[in-house]
Amino acid sequence: MQTFHFESIGIVHSPYREKFGIPRQPGLVDAEATLELLPPYNRPEAVKGLEGFSHIWITFVFHGVKRSEWKPMVRPPRLGGNERVGVFASRATHRPNPIGLSVVELSGIDCSDKKVVLHLKGADMLDGTPVLDIKPYIPYADNVEAARSGFADKAPAPLLEVVFSAAAGQQCEELSLHYPQLPRLITDVLALDPRPAYQAEEGREYGVILYDFNIRFRVTVGCVEVLAIESVG
Amino acid sequence: MQTFHFESIGIVHSPYREKFGIPRQPGLVDAEATLELLPPYNRPEAVKGLEGFSHIWITFVFHGVKRSEWKPMVRPPRLGGNERVGVFASRATHRPNPIGLSVVELSGIDCSDKKVVLHLKGADMLDGTPVLDIKPYIPYADNVEAARSGFADKAPAPLLEVVFSAAAGQQCEELSLHYPQLPRLITDVLALDPRPAYQAEEGREYGVILYDFNIRFRVTVGCVEVLAIESVG
Repeated sequence: MQTFHFESIGIVHSPYREKFGIPRQPGLVDAEATLELLPPYNRPEAVKGLEGFSHIWITFVFHGVKRSEWKPMVRPPRLGGNERVGVFASRATHRPNPIGLSVVELSGIDCSDKKVVLHLKGADMLDGTPVLDIKPYIPYADNVEAARSGFADKAPAPLLEVVFSAAAGQQCEELSLHYPQLPRLITDVLALDPRPAYQAEEGREYGVILYDFNIRFRVTVGCVEVLAIESVG
Repeated sequence: MQTFHFESIGIVHSPYREKFGIPRQPGLVDAEATLELLPPYNRPEAVKGLEGFSHIWITFVFHGVKRSEWKPMVRPPRLGGNERVGVFASRATHRPNPIGLSVVELSGIDCSDKKVVLHLKGADMLDGTPVLDIKPYIPYADNVEAARSGFADKAPAPLLEVVFSAAAGQQCEELSLHYPQLPRLITDVLALDPRPAYQAEEGREYGVILYDFNIRFRVTVGCVEVLAIESVG
């Protein structure tokens, strides 16, 4: 057994300020985020040619997970949260080495102001996520046609309808002047029903934090109602 | 900038004993390899349910690469070895954090004898590669239809024909009693032409080490001739 030391080479800035609400896999919600290279890696040459790729792999650290003794089994949300599978048979965040892996759309690269910033779409990472590596997505290496995927084969649950209360709708419209992505992001995140499957109570109030706002909502008869948007910044 | 410490959770046993000859991306050659979980991670529960997946992601360390000061640009073989691109626009092994990523076919799991061993096909890793993480390959998260892939978009170079000299053919047939994969592996690896693109000399003799054998070969007019198979074990 060997130990390895790695430095973060970048950091992610994303609207997801807490784990609750993050879509379970990348690409489900078209959230915009950025990946900023950290010194001394913020050299424009280091990303030369990357603009030719539409997608990239980000290898990152699940920095929000407390590093405690590992458990060999986890309860993935896809199975309702009550059935256990091996940690290596899951994409759970609590694993021996807290390393995450996501493919995201690269929508642009900005090298102005002595910074190197990658613009991303569909990222599923927490704000402040440390990045260990970036690789281009290469279809002939990374696409597996007809891969069999066990318990993850079932189609994701259908999307819920999302409606805004009059008050929340008004708040959202005002905030959208400075946060143009907010209305769409709220709708897309809540349509996926972020509530833990084993704890999804009808009518109970929940809150999900996006940007600097706590989005309060409840679910009744398959419909999500956004009740209020509170500043938490 | 933060530093992270990770432990290897497993080790790869593969026929590739040196970097020269390793196919440039996984899945090009159907080589058989194994991934053995290391204590304390060699618990069968840790892979429960993984058998339902046909493919897995292996996050590993490029342990054969000397850790030296990073360079922001590399010369990928796909571009002939003379054109430079950013390290993050490549899958090169010499990167700030020497982390590799490959999707491989999972052909079986063996939990006998207090060991947990994953049987793999199409792996492109060096013998002795330390493994940091295993994740199931999940198409709806990991497949990107119609991803644009820059300089890697061009189809790989056509395969070369591989012929064996009389002596090499005889040696190969004898060795195949104990190494049933050897004939096919030699053919598949050499058909990809492992010679560095900027140094591919006609008629010059090269050697690639597979298992405990140095496979001596030369290339003339688009055909690879296997000259001899020498024990190096």
